[in-house]
Amino acid sequence: MTNQYNTGLDKNAANFVALSPLSYIERAARVYPDRTAVIYGERRQNWAQTYERCRRLASALAARGIGPGDTVAVMLPNVPAMFEAHFGVPMTGAVLNTLNTRLDAEAIAFMLQHGEAKVVLTDREFSGVMVKALAMCGTHRPYVIEVEDETAPAGYDLGEISYEDFLAQGDPGYSWSLPPDEWDAIALNYTSGTTGNPKGVVTHHRGAYLNAASNVISWQLPHHATYLWTLPMFHCNGWCFPWTMALIAGASVFLRKVDPTHIFELVREHHITHLSGAPIVYSLLINTPDSLREGITHKIHGQIAGAAPPAAVIEGCERVGIELIHVYGLTEVYGPAAVCAKQAHWEGLSIEERAQLNGRQGVSAPMQQAIAVLDPETMEPVPADGETMGEIFFRGNVVMKGYLKNPGATEEAFAGGWFHTGDLAVMYPDGYVKIRDRSKDVIISGGENISSIEVEDALHRHPAVMLAAVVAMPDARWGEVPCAFVELKPDAQATGEEILEFCRQLLARFKVPKRVVFGALPKTSTGKIQKFVLRGQVKSTSAIE
Amino acid sequence: MTNQYNTGLDKNAANFVALSPLSYIERAARVYPDRTAVIYGERRQNWAQTYERCRRLASALAARGIGPGDTVAVMLPNVPAMFEAHFGVPMTGAVLNTLNTRLDAEAIAFMLQHGEAKVVLTDREFSGVMVKALAMCGTHRPYVIEVEDETAPAGYDLGEISYEDFLAQGDPGYSWSLPPDEWDAIALNYTSGTTGNPKGVVTHHRGAYLNAASNVISWQLPHHATYLWTLPMFHCNGWCFPWTMALIAGASVFLRKVDPTHIFELVREHHITHLSGAPIVYSLLINTPDSLREGITHKIHGQIAGAAPPAAVIEGCERVGIELIHVYGLTEVYGPAAVCAKQAHWEGLSIEERAQLNGRQGVSAPMQQAIAVLDPETMEPVPADGETMGEIFFRGNVVMKGYLKNPGATEEAFAGGWFHTGDLAVMYPDGYVKIRDRSKDVIISGGENISSIEVEDALHRHPAVMLAAVVAMPDARWGEVPCAFVELKPDAQATGEEILEFCRQLLARFKVPKRVVFGALPKTSTGKIQKFVLRGQVKSTSAIE
Repeated sequence: MTNQYNTGLDKNAANFVALSPLSYIERAARVYPDRTAVIYGERRQNWAQTYERCRRLASALAARGIGPGDTVAVMLPNVPAMFEAHFGVPMTGAVLNTLNTRLDAEAIAFMLQHGEAKVVLTDREFSGVMVKALAMCGTHRPYVIEVEDETAPAGYDLGEISYEDFLAQGDPGYSWSLPPDEWDAIALNYTSGTTGNPKGVVTHHRGAYLNAASNVISWQLPHHATYLWTLPMFHCNGWCFPWTMALIAGASVFLRKVDPTHIFELVREHHITHLSGAPIVYSLLINTPDSLREGITHKIHGQIAGAAPPAAVIEGCERVGIELIHVYGLTEVYGPAAVCAKQAHWEGLSIEERAQLNGRQGVSAPMQQAIAVLDPETMEPVPADGETMGEIFFRGNVVMKGYLKNPGATEEAFAGGWFHTGDLAVMYPDGYVKIRDRSKDVIISGGENISSIEVEDALHRHPAVMLAAVVAMPDARWGEVPCAFVELKPDAQATGEEILEFCRQLLARFKVPKRVVFGALPKTSTGKIQKFVLRGQVKSTSAIE
Repeated sequence: MTNQYNTGLDKNAANFVALSPLSYIERAARVYPDRTAVIYGERRQNWAQTYERCRRLASALAARGIGPGDTVAVMLPNVPAMFEAHFGVPMTGAVLNTLNTRLDAEAIAFMLQHGEAKVVLTDREFSGVMVKALAMCGTHRPYVIEVEDETAPAGYDLGEISYEDFLAQGDPGYSWSLPPDEWDAIALNYTSGTTGNPKGVVTHHRGAYLNAASNVISWQLPHHATYLWTLPMFHCNGWCFPWTMALIAGASVFLRKVDPTHIFELVREHHITHLSGAPIVYSLLINTPDSLREGITHKIHGQIAGAAPPAAVIEGCERVGIELIHVYGLTEVYGPAAVCAKQAHWEGLSIEERAQLNGRQGVSAPMQQAIAVLDPETMEPVPADGETMGEIFFRGNVVMKGYLKNPGATEEAFAGGWFHTGDLAVMYPDGYVKIRDRSKDVIISGGENISSIEVEDALHRHPAVMLAAVVAMPDARWGEVPCAFVELKPDAQATGEEILEFCRQLLARFKVPKRVVFGALPKTSTGKIQKFVLRGQVKSTSAIE
């Protein structure tokens, strides 16, 4: 029998359009042309001007032959050109490759070559690395556009042309097209692999469109919110927030560096309502003198991700008027794809209990289909008992196309019809996920699993501790034992024995670290602690002993 | 050259899921199981219970053989079963056909037969019409499920089974599936054609998913909003709000009839934050004694559509604390697909000026691609001068699949790659659309076009006028002249001459009505004034004269 609803009711130009976040900037410029889009130092741009600049960029790129399937890389801090590239590059059909500005020349050269970048936008701050990386590209050197910024530190001027001169070649009325297929790639982001070559995560227009909207719905973002770019835009395209800001016609306040003094100036001057970042960003903000926050009385909404936020950070933010929402994700799912959605009945609980509940990774974001904690062998859900560990999996429209030119890794990542995160977690009875560890971060001591995060949580409760990380240390008797690395708050003091005694109050004896090492912790550009560096330190020390 | 981004990066079960608003209720029940979903009289249901009931409905329907391509009709007021049908029916893959409860037996019989409904849910209030309509279906009589409600007026018990008994047959854990294709039909809504047979508008899961989200973003709907169902759910599936409420895990307050006294009781008791409706709903609310509103101090957000809201209504709502947003659409675009988005600089203007600006149909909704005013001959945009009339067209993902079994009408509706609304409008320099008239409502007097809406706007400014409608009246000299039909406010008085003199102050002489007829205006179930009835009256009177 034929289905009457499938006859003569096909897609056509009137009723089907590719989902793309580029539609958001077209609407922002059309409906709110005069609203502020860009704030950077003394610079202001409204949405009409910003849209014109993006079209100029697209037009000038197209005139250089850039089009569908091509890659345009950017090595930029959070400056307006970085924002504009998120629209101008995909308007040509090309793919935006945001490079992690903390990487070395070898890694950057690998990415430029692997991604086959034809053009790269760069900033003087990274010229030292870029000179070397470009030299390594040999005859495949991309066309280099220098984004000039007088606040950039000294360095080489690298480009074949300056960004402003390049834009001047473009047509502000350039008639760009939506991608022919919403499955077409929009961005390429290399994961910062700690071993081997980085993998190139390819995302698509459909997912970017949906995740940008999911951000608005999940965070209840009002129209015209003012967003401070404490989150590096090279990190999962700033969690899709360039496109989210276009959808709500909000104002973006850019900054080159995460510096607490400057941040509070910007919050005060521009009445920042929203920001995102890793726990380290919030640690910095709450561990500053109260005088910096003077005159700031409005509530700031903060999304926190990148590592499970220590309870102390959640508590500290409540104290200084930052309303935190904890989100979780990975580059492969466009940034956050899970949110620790708050429940009304949590409000009556103690700050400690709330910090515990809010510190979980939570539930799937509104437009992500599912998050699950499965036994990776059987792909069956673990019991929702808050105890049984399994691996976190995602499924839905906010999941990458796959890894560029890496069918093996792609197949592995999607085996069984779910995206494998590699994060180990438990599922609570209320359906909230809580990370216990990265697979490689679990410490196995005398046959017992120790969650490094649980030990870190205990360390973070000590009043002198600013940041802590725990890794496995080889041990002749137990196989592995926990080793704690601790960064103290400015002017705070503590001895190793004091720290250990504190841990003994909170943890089972076998989970208490066997050693405490004091000092600044090595961090990635996104504020994640580089445990592999600490593991290296542990190994070399062990070898000496 | 091959595109590296199209190789080995295909869709799979992990990264591609059909967009469907059914995903929203699954998430609401999972993340917010205990939050209230349904309030009706003394009845309360949380999201877990509501989801279970929807799954029971789907399961019981499936057990009767209902599946993809089948039609399930409902002839129901705004009661919980109507809401549940918006989830339970599509969970089976079937299509929900909401019948306009104000129609007569002939029209209902036509729809049941044309849509090939296999099952119909009905309410005692409409049993008189249904008995006749079902008789007309002969051997194609659908299976009838009676939704019992003790508050329903007296009538026949019609069903083969009661709704609750039917649900009891179903499995609350029923494992439903998303549609295999997001383009699959979700609903069938017949347009209330005033001549000829109604056309069956077929909408799809993709559009319903996107419009439900667009509602949240456009209206800045917070999580857990409390929505009062003043808008008939049979009207464009309640503008997709059943699905929107699932997306925000909000509470729906149902009511059988739009009665101002009852509405204010509900607003007070449940702290209603949001409601939608035609201008008549708001007219009723603002033209009630202040005593009814006693104790209500919170702001209510109201979406108004269905006809251009008279300035007096916009002003009246501002006065009583209803923050109106004007939206515009048609069944073919899932209800509102345009919104009169407010601009910050309007706030400083007089209430009159704001009413003028807010009375426009506005701009495309966030997830609708485009609205345009085109010359229907050339399909070129009219100048954005606020003067030149053209026809309104929509394009985007929130546009129907087409008309059921009506390829001719479908082709006509989509000619030129745009959906033709048949509404005549001008485009203002700020990109906002303002309806001047339905094509057939324009009055052509001595070769000049008179917008009936402009004349109605003038009439609505008269303090004694509650509602007004203007239609063409044949005239020997001018061809046509305007005839005004006026419904006065309760206890208000005015003479025809007073009304005309008032119009002369505001309108060019040739636009002033030549006759004023007092009395209650005929309205459709959705509050639209039935101008064809008035035209009939004009004709018969003219004939007598």
